[in-house]
Amino acid sequence: MDGPLLTIDRADDRPLGVQLVEGLRRGILSGLLQTGDPLPSTRALAVELGVARSSVVAAYDQLAGEGYLEVRQGAPTRVARLAAPPAPAASTSGASPATAEGPVRTVVAGVASSTPATTVQTGRGAPEAGAADAGAAGGGADAAAVDLRPGRPSTARLDERAWRAAWRAAARDAVPDDTPPDFGSPRLRAEIAEHLRHARGVTCPPDDIVVTAGTSDAVALLASALRIVVGGRPRVAVEHPGYPSARRVLERRGALETVPVPVDRDGIEVAALRAIRPAPHAVLVTPSHQYPLGGRLPVATRLALLEWAEASGALVFEDDYDSEFRHVGPPLPALASLDGAGHAVLIGSFSKVLTPWLRLGYLVLPPNPALRAAVAAVRDDETCPVPGIAQAAMTELLATGAVRRHIAAARRDYAHRRTLVVDALDGIDGAPLSGLDGGLHAVVGLPSHAAAARVVARLAGVGVLVAPLSEYSAIPGEGPSGIVLGYASPPDSRLAGALGRVRQAVDEALGR
Amino acid sequence: MDGPLLTIDRADDRPLGVQLVEGLRRGILSGLLQTGDPLPSTRALAVELGVARSSVVAAYDQLAGEGYLEVRQGAPTRVARLAAPPAPAASTSGASPATAEGPVRTVVAGVASSTPATTVQTGRGAPEAGAADAGAAGGGADAAAVDLRPGRPSTARLDERAWRAAWRAAARDAVPDDTPPDFGSPRLRAEIAEHLRHARGVTCPPDDIVVTAGTSDAVALLASALRIVVGGRPRVAVEHPGYPSARRVLERRGALETVPVPVDRDGIEVAALRAIRPAPHAVLVTPSHQYPLGGRLPVATRLALLEWAEASGALVFEDDYDSEFRHVGPPLPALASLDGAGHAVLIGSFSKVLTPWLRLGYLVLPPNPALRAAVAAVRDDETCPVPGIAQAAMTELLATGAVRRHIAAARRDYAHRRTLVVDALDGIDGAPLSGLDGGLHAVVGLPSHAAAARVVARLAGVGVLVAPLSEYSAIPGEGPSGIVLGYASPPDSRLAGALGRVRQAVDEALGR
Repeated sequence: MDGPLLTIDRADDRPLGVQLVEGLRRGILSGLLQTGDPLPSTRALAVELGVARSSVVAAYDQLAGEGYLEVRQGAPTRVARLAAPPAPAASTSGASPATAEGPVRTVVAGVASSTPATTVQTGRGAPEAGAADAGAAGGGADAAAVDLRPGRPSTARLDERAWRAAWRAAARDAVPDDTPPDFGSPRLRAEIAEHLRHARGVTCPPDDIVVTAGTSDAVALLASALRIVVGGRPRVAVEHPGYPSARRVLERRGALETVPVPVDRDGIEVAALRAIRPAPHAVLVTPSHQYPLGGRLPVATRLALLEWAEASGALVFEDDYDSEFRHVGPPLPALASLDGAGHAVLIGSFSKVLTPWLRLGYLVLPPNPALRAAVAAVRDDETCPVPGIAQAAMTELLATGAVRRHIAAARRDYAHRRTLVVDALDGIDGAPLSGLDGGLHAVVGLPSHAAAARVVARLAGVGVLVAPLSEYSAIPGEGPSGIVLGYASPPDSRLAGALGRVRQAVDEALGR
Repeated sequence: MDGPLLTIDRADDRPLGVQLVEGLRRGILSGLLQTGDPLPSTRALAVELGVARSSVVAAYDQLAGEGYLEVRQGAPTRVARLAAPPAPAASTSGASPATAEGPVRTVVAGVASSTPATTVQTGRGAPEAGAADAGAAGGGADAAAVDLRPGRPSTARLDERAWRAAWRAAARDAVPDDTPPDFGSPRLRAEIAEHLRHARGVTCPPDDIVVTAGTSDAVALLASALRIVVGGRPRVAVEHPGYPSARRVLERRGALETVPVPVDRDGIEVAALRAIRPAPHAVLVTPSHQYPLGGRLPVATRLALLEWAEASGALVFEDDYDSEFRHVGPPLPALASLDGAGHAVLIGSFSKVLTPWLRLGYLVLPPNPALRAAVAAVRDDETCPVPGIAQAAMTELLATGAVRRHIAAARRDYAHRRTLVVDALDGIDGAPLSGLDGGLHAVVGLPSHAAAARVVARLAGVGVLVAPLSEYSAIPGEGPSGIVLGYASPPDSRLAGALGRVRQAVDEALGR
């Protein structure tokens, strides 16, 4: 039996677009539309509902961005596979006032109150399940785990047409018989300089840009260059807690000694850095969104950091990994913009802006001849690791505005997902939520490393992967305790279910 | 006035294809056809000459591979820009019996003896110049320098259609939100294993393959892994003379100590390696085509090297950078094929097989759990640096046979260019030519480093870049003296002119 797919109520004062999105989402969450079901073409649905086709296109696009639909060129749009919800039996706590399931149930409840005015049939029989099964849409034992470990952006909004066009254009170029230029293609460096001006307010000539294979490559390159600049074995201060891979890359690739510096709610404690004797040769910091705690270094502290660098002749490596996504408060200037003395190196990457699948990032070198010569010497031996054709495609994506448009669309999605995190996890006594002012991850504090370990294990058991804060410690066993959650990658529906499970696990760990 | 483009003599017993190629080459070298001139379509020329179109296509293809023609999809085939020949005034030596000009003049001289049977008009007036100006075809003061420094393959034979199709196919894939798998995509690893079986006779499961961003990345990865395996500061033996970038990557990235081991005409001296106390933890070797001297390590020496590795618990890093191109004698088995004890790591790359523009290579790990775990730990922190889409495109190029076909075509071109090198430079008293049994470069020995420096400087002055052997020395000021010439990249016509200049410079340095 075919059921109604969608109802539009012209008496409803919500805009048509909102009704379209909510109606379709409801259809999917209620089980009326199931994983793999094809949707009508945008043209057919627009005709049936008597709405503009552009409204339907926008609604499909939004739902695809949220993960409810799969849009594929040349094939019908279909309902995506959704995450399995928390099993009812696991719901031991009746006191979770704002789990992610809340909004979902509200939407489903809305079905009853809506007055059908126009109906559209699906091509597939509606299941028996009604509102009670809302959470189970598309779910089942075969649903994949939801990976909430930080570091992954959403690629759902990527403009596939622009992506393919960029690679097609790049593949038309003649194929040189040489390695790409050591610092990257001049055209790409110019586009990155332009991108930095727009997206980050950093003004630099293309000559300052070095194309990298991402942040690890940048850190490795700087580690090798620092060895040349310093002569002996350099010492590099790192944030504690901080980015563990970068710390290990420094230690392994450059055989450097790292010195942990504690982090407060704003970011690195400059007083602690200043107290280190002898002063380290460099410091690796994440001032825009401390990784992982999420603090943002105030301008005064940034200036103090640069003063320290100048006084001690040290370099500051600024890992600016997700500053494009700022949810609360204005973006603060990069250290590179505040630095007048040639000490700050900006490390940027398209891993969060587009996808880490690309392995493409960049450095911005300060006017520091010794550092520049050392970086050039390292690249001369090791060559630029980024394929020439990938540089050409990235140039195209930047030049055509595809990257700018993608950031704008992703920013909206991330802001929405962030509210899901706040709705599900904010205000738990003994488990403070933090780090949400910018970026793509949040931290839930917990009373002990043991409690955090229990939450991580419990969640892994129900298919939700999160990272314990202890993984980021630069001093084993020390540092704040809690869990880190990346919320950018899973579509809304999967994220909401997973956050409900996180809430349950945290409640359990707190003995509730 | 339009002149005859091409003559075909049916009384000539040379095959039609040969006559076509030689006739067109003659037309270009004689100046009848000049840089930028369009050629008739293959169809039109085939009809005019009464030959099969496939013969004309093959002739155009061969001449494009040799650098005489530029073929562009959707545009007429045109005469390429050719290198400037040695200026007549610079020809101070009348005693060069086999300069590169020899064959060129022979071909041009052939014009007179050919009996025209069919003629085709060019669309452009023939210049006044006849055979006397043959060497000046397309030349002039604006001709770019000819880079004969080693390390660059020819990309002229690359099948542009297959190249573009591979990237198009790769760009159609969904874009993941994660880094590529640490060891590379499973499909690419399977295709590389298959490629190694065909092209190198190495049999290994795809699980042994680690995708890299080329040889430097492979060496850096192994350096970091070796630090983990060894614990302290590893010592790595390197060939002297040898690959200077690899040596510096080892020293910088892994902060390893390198120990130079002399090379004889076959390759590394295993007796000298054996004598080092304490034994180094690893050795980096180029047994297929010693870099730069060009020796080939006999099987018995390979076995002795592996015996040493087993006895001392050392690893052998085999840089197999150009073994696909073997001109004289059978290819010898890779160390990895002879190794039964898990000591030999094969380092391969598509830099010479296709182009270093791709930044794509691989390791083959032996069954050595400690090394494998260390490589995995390094890649876990640093991620696979090769873009996922580049891995997908490379998979396509391997799976469709485009790589295999390219190697076959390139091998023919390189064999031909090698004969140009032999013709121009073999048999000079006091300047032995060597290293030509395989690969893409040759060595001309000279009496002293000073003489080599003079030749390098003299050639740079006339726009020909070669590398002095001293650049490859692992002990400053020591080691054999001479120059290294890469002959793969420049098209025949440019190569021939440049080799003539090399001959002159060598003669001058020897006081002739």
